[in-house]
Amino acid sequence: MIKIIIVMNSQASEAEVKKVIDKLHEMGHEVHISRGEKRIILGVIGEVENLVSLPFYAFKGVEEIIPILKPYKLTSREFKDFDTVIKVKGVTIGGKEVVVMAGPCAVEEEKQILDIAHYIKALGVKVLRGGAFKPRSSPYSFQGLGEDGLKLLAEAGEEADLAVVTEVMSVNQIELVAKYADILQVGARNMQNFVLLKELGKLKKPVLLKRGMSATLEELLLAAEYILSQGNYEVILCERGIRTFENYTRNTLDLSAVPALKELSHLPVVVDPSHGTGRWKLVSPMAKAAIAAGADGLLIEVHPEPQNSFSDGAQTLRLETFAQLMKEMKPLIQAVGREFEMATPNELERVEH
Amino acid sequence: MIKIIIVMNSQASEAEVKKVIDKLHEMGHEVHISRGEKRIILGVIGEVENLVSLPFYAFKGVEEIIPILKPYKLTSREFKDFDTVIKVKGVTIGGKEVVVMAGPCAVEEEKQILDIAHYIKALGVKVLRGGAFKPRSSPYSFQGLGEDGLKLLAEAGEEADLAVVTEVMSVNQIELVAKYADILQVGARNMQNFVLLKELGKLKKPVLLKRGMSATLEELLLAAEYILSQGNYEVILCERGIRTFENYTRNTLDLSAVPALKELSHLPVVVDPSHGTGRWKLVSPMAKAAIAAGADGLLIEVHPEPQNSFSDGAQTLRLETFAQLMKEMKPLIQAVGREFEMATPNELERVEH
Amino acid sequence: MIKIIIVMNSQASEAEVKKVIDKLHEMGHEVHISRGEKRIILGVIGEVENLVSLPFYAFKGVEEIIPILKPYKLTSREFKDFDTVIKVKGVTIGGKEVVVMAGPCAVEEEKQILDIAHYIKALGVKVLRGGAFKPRSSPYSFQGLGEDGLKLLAEAGEEADLAVVTEVMSVNQIELVAKYADILQVGARNMQNFVLLKELGKLKKPVLLKRGMSATLEELLLAAEYILSQGNYEVILCERGIRTFENYTRNTLDLSAVPALKELSHLPVVVDPSHGTGRWKLVSPMAKAAIAAGADGLLIEVHPEPQNSFSDGAQTLRLETFAQLMKEMKPLIQAVGREFEMATPNELERVEH
Amino acid sequence: MIKIIIVMNSQASEAEVKKVIDKLHEMGHEVHISRGEKRIILGVIGEVENLVSLPFYAFKGVEEIIPILKPYKLTSREFKDFDTVIKVKGVTIGGKEVVVMAGPCAVEEEKQILDIAHYIKALGVKVLRGGAFKPRSSPYSFQGLGEDGLKLLAEAGEEADLAVVTEVMSVNQIELVAKYADILQVGARNMQNFVLLKELGKLKKPVLLKRGMSATLEELLLAAEYILSQGNYEVILCERGIRTFENYTRNTLDLSAVPALKELSHLPVVVDPSHGTGRWKLVSPMAKAAIAAGADGLLIEVHPEPQNSFSDGAQTLRLETFAQLMKEMKPLIQAVGREFEMATPNELERVEH
Repeated sequence: MIKIIIVMNSQASEAEVKKVIDKLHEMGHEVHISRGEKRIILGVIGEVENLVSLPFYAFKGVEEIIPILKPYKLTSREFKDFDTVIKVKGVTIGGKEVVVMAGPCAVEEEKQILDIAHYIKALGVKVLRGGAFKPRSSPYSFQGLGEDGLKLLAEAGEEADLAVVTEVMSVNQIELVAKYADILQVGARNMQNFVLLKELGKLKKPVLLKRGMSATLEELLLAAEYILSQGNYEVILCERGIRTFENYTRNTLDLSAVPALKELSHLPVVVDPSHGTGRWKLVSPMAKAAIAAGADGLLIEVHPEPQNSFSDGAQTLRLETFAQLMKEMKPLIQAVGREFEMATPNELERVEH
Repeated sequence: MIKIIIVMNSQASEAEVKKVIDKLHEMGHEVHISRGEKRIILGVIGEVENLVSLPFYAFKGVEEIIPILKPYKLTSREFKDFDTVIKVKGVTIGGKEVVVMAGPCAVEEEKQILDIAHYIKALGVKVLRGGAFKPRSSPYSFQGLGEDGLKLLAEAGEEADLAVVTEVMSVNQIELVAKYADILQVGARNMQNFVLLKELGKLKKPVLLKRGMSATLEELLLAAEYILSQGNYEVILCERGIRTFENYTRNTLDLSAVPALKELSHLPVVVDPSHGTGRWKLVSPMAKAAIAAGADGLLIEVHPEPQNSFSDGAQTLRLETFAQLMKEMKPLIQAVGREFEMATPNELERVEH
Repeated sequence: MIKIIIVMNSQASEAEVKKVIDKLHEMGHEVHISRGEKRIILGVIGEVENLVSLPFYAFKGVEEIIPILKPYKLTSREFKDFDTVIKVKGVTIGGKEVVVMAGPCAVEEEKQILDIAHYIKALGVKVLRGGAFKPRSSPYSFQGLGEDGLKLLAEAGEEADLAVVTEVMSVNQIELVAKYADILQVGARNMQNFVLLKELGKLKKPVLLKRGMSATLEELLLAAEYILSQGNYEVILCERGIRTFENYTRNTLDLSAVPALKELSHLPVVVDPSHGTGRWKLVSPMAKAAIAAGADGLLIEVHPEPQNSFSDGAQTLRLETFAQLMKEMKPLIQAVGREFEMATPNELERVEH
Repeated sequence: MIKIIIVMNSQASEAEVKKVIDKLHEMGHEVHISRGEKRIILGVIGEVENLVSLPFYAFKGVEEIIPILKPYKLTSREFKDFDTVIKVKGVTIGGKEVVVMAGPCAVEEEKQILDIAHYIKALGVKVLRGGAFKPRSSPYSFQGLGEDGLKLLAEAGEEADLAVVTEVMSVNQIELVAKYADILQVGARNMQNFVLLKELGKLKKPVLLKRGMSATLEELLLAAEYILSQGNYEVILCERGIRTFENYTRNTLDLSAVPALKELSHLPVVVDPSHGTGRWKLVSPMAKAAIAAGADGLLIEVHPEPQNSFSDGAQTLRLETFAQLMKEMKPLIQAVGREFEMATPNELERVEH
């Protein structure tokens, strides 16, 4: 299975584009369309020989025909050499701004999630995270509040004007989760749950795809490809640590994945230093390091009282520590040429007290 | 969440057992029942304090009350100190006999699967394996024949008098796969697909659970616990190699997992040297090593023409090589005090030619 | 073997300190002395019972007696809670300044090393690195110039006013290497060459100790302890990537090791993003990330023509790319509250052309 | 650096062989000579172009000229396609017999080592192991008895008529260790101590080379190549477990390394299930599995009272458990077509009581 992309120039008319697509369909090929500001890209699944032998250069508007050698196709920079920018509920992911997603490991009760939402909103956070369906190693651990949790999360997002991201664990939960969430998260343990990935590929909502504990970068990109190949191009890749022999940290956060993924793919890349380290003291330095490495965003677990949190307490930042991190990150973000907005000091003071 | 087991002696009457169970239900506890030849074991989920304070020793037939300290409960030897023996379609897994499961990576077409089935049956194989739904890293790789594959597999099993094992990848495939398969396999990538595990726990068919690529033994046993905790006690654990830095082999087959799992758990343990090594030349020596390490069975990929197989050709044995292995294994199996039956030399010759 | 530290207050006179030490020696204990600005710390090897039972608090100047629970003692923050600052040839390592060490993988010839030395000096580099004895996986690969390489390196350092760091591979090379080098490097493969570590512990020169490919943080600190326990307290820890299943990068650079080591130990921590990634395109982002994570310095491979370098070409920066990195790092270093000095733009321009 | 081998037929006279060698020396090439029963092999280091262009086929006795493509040369099966058999003090390693090496982790005192030696001799053990120089993670752990330990070990070997293997940790210990030991062991932590390997290559005693904790098979073979390239062809490879994420076992014993190494190289391969698992209960099953996988020998830690051993107690077999293992292994060894000799039951009984 080799893949070809046909690049059409920006002056190509809709009719010209349609002609090419019709020809491809007529030949029996599947076509993926990606419209950038400067050009339109058609991704074609099919044998290179058949495609190259046809006179596509003769079609008006066709600029270039390129075979994609990487095993992942739509996901690769070869397919699309400009960055994918995802817009969801007023938040822009993958652009110049660094997007911080924060919240508790699990949604626990109404006041908890609301308080957190208001607090972090003022610090510049744009997306509220919180688990309603929790994948836990043991069947006897807290498994999340389910739909009740989803409702509380969505309400808190609404109230504090934050987009909302939460995990979906199985195909039979997609509809329910999509009803409440703005971004659907696939957890590390499900990165190669291919049936789930394919179904999410049919959705019209962004997917945050976490790297599996023992997944190579190529496997992560192929997992993303499962989603893109079904027509959903809005995938956010997330580095959250890999499993190694080192046991001081819960996982080994592989920050080199950030520049590597940005080079191999056009998709936005965010980092989860909470799961990536498993120790709250390491979260802040690694959040900063992620930004310096070029991450488009962060996913951070916060809680008013980590010691009483239902899960993941050891890696969760207290709100005050998180506020400190946000303030320290601002100059760093500017030093690497990115943007980040917080409330004014006055507003900040009001919220924090 | 702590767990208690109540051991009842073999002379306890049904009525006596029922009394204890009713009391536990009345107190609001979930109860798991496991009947051995010599005693009956009740697994109770609940706080140790509450349970121990109650005068269960006063109930007739109660022999012992033991708290289980391991995070996995029903899966542990603490819960049940005699081996689980699974009987399915005349095959006994976990007993004295070494059970060999063999077949192609994927079901490809009718003649292929039938020929293989007859050939391996004569060599002493008891279970036919073959993928109909294939989890593949790339969305562009062959994904299996789906229901058509299931049908061909079931027919071949029927014809050659072999039980049949095949993979189920998602909750929405369970019903379909269970219609055709005698044993349902959970692949390494789905070992922590907890929604899938829970649903399989409600099934009345044995589950072959493969260890995840980066799963510890404890995590594997906790994954099994998800199935057992729903009432399905027929789980076969499968070591199939873990992911390490070594790249000569596809995975690193961790044979120490065999005696370790046998010590920690009462469940049968089989080994897959095909995925465990990724190289056909290593399959035979590692199959033998698995038996010497105490495995209850083997899962081996075979194909008449590995070079033309749709997937996994590099790790697949030709039928002749497999026959050679079966013959060499026989004395080895006897040397470790286990049993294995093959056709008579005459019959063998007939099949092989 | 448990260890005790005796903290003496800053007003304690030399005579008072001597009295305590004499008493400890009299009791048969080994004593390690560490003088900070505010207090003097005595590390005592011996049984806690014996030491605690003695009336050391009765000695004048004794402020506190603390048992060290960590397996590493002199290396731990429990032993010494202020940062170790190492001064060598006018360079300060472990202070406010970020120290960059750069140079070719191997010293190749006079002009090469001299040109590099002058070029990097202007960019703010303080230490020149370069291998004379090269540990190579294959006996048929270039093994370094030996003493000739050491001489060229020392001359280049002298000429460009840079301190010099180079690897020592064996006890029988120590004397020779120490004659030319300001800092002696222990490579990853020798991190647990305990005989070498002990001998380096008797030296009066700083040692740069690289983390072994599969060494935990605890093992790295215990390796450092081998050096400190012999009396040489000037050890620089170096994170250079660990071996994992990921093969896109040569190693997985574990940046969480930086804040973790800084918390567990008082020793300076530097990062080698060249070996840590094995790909030159990832060196710059990971160098920046290391700084943001709190590293005290960097170790970077540079070469005028990486494609013609005798070894490690793929991970080596061209001089222009390195200059670009240094310029980009400056604002980042300031954003995290550290210092870094480069030549004036005028001088820079002169050197670069 | 490419390598050529020149195969000379068995009828070639010494004079004919000398002529070829002289020509190669004259051309400036280094030559390695390996004499098998059927043919003589000359390993030549040099450029393929130069060597192939010369009319070596014109020399009498030259049968074939083959370039070696693998990075390891003398170590590879391409260089020598028959097994290396090492004879030392009446013991044959790499032949049909399975050679068991056993003894305490560390030599502790005279009676200990003597008692063990006599006991294991009767069980069929051929080589006595015991550490005198111990590589320990912590400088505060027991470091071995040094020369005193070597003496006790050599005496016990003499008394019980066992060959003796012990570890050498550094170049400056080689002379001393070689004085007492029949086989010199290189520990996992020193597998890439290249200076040590080169010096051992000049010795006339067999070297037992343990695989490094994170060494690939290729790196192990290249480490062996360092020894062979200096003229010492008597290297025994040892699989002793690699470091992975799994922490139930101390290491993950990679038994697939046994058939893989036997295929890639002509050197004997032994397995150390004691370090390979770190748990005594797993030692016996993994010892058996190693034999089934094709190992030429075993290295096992035994002690009369593991709970009182100075080191590695958790992975050490009591003598009775070891005796049980030896008895169980015998039929297994025969089942795989290898040989193993024990004392007669009568003698055995005498020793055990």
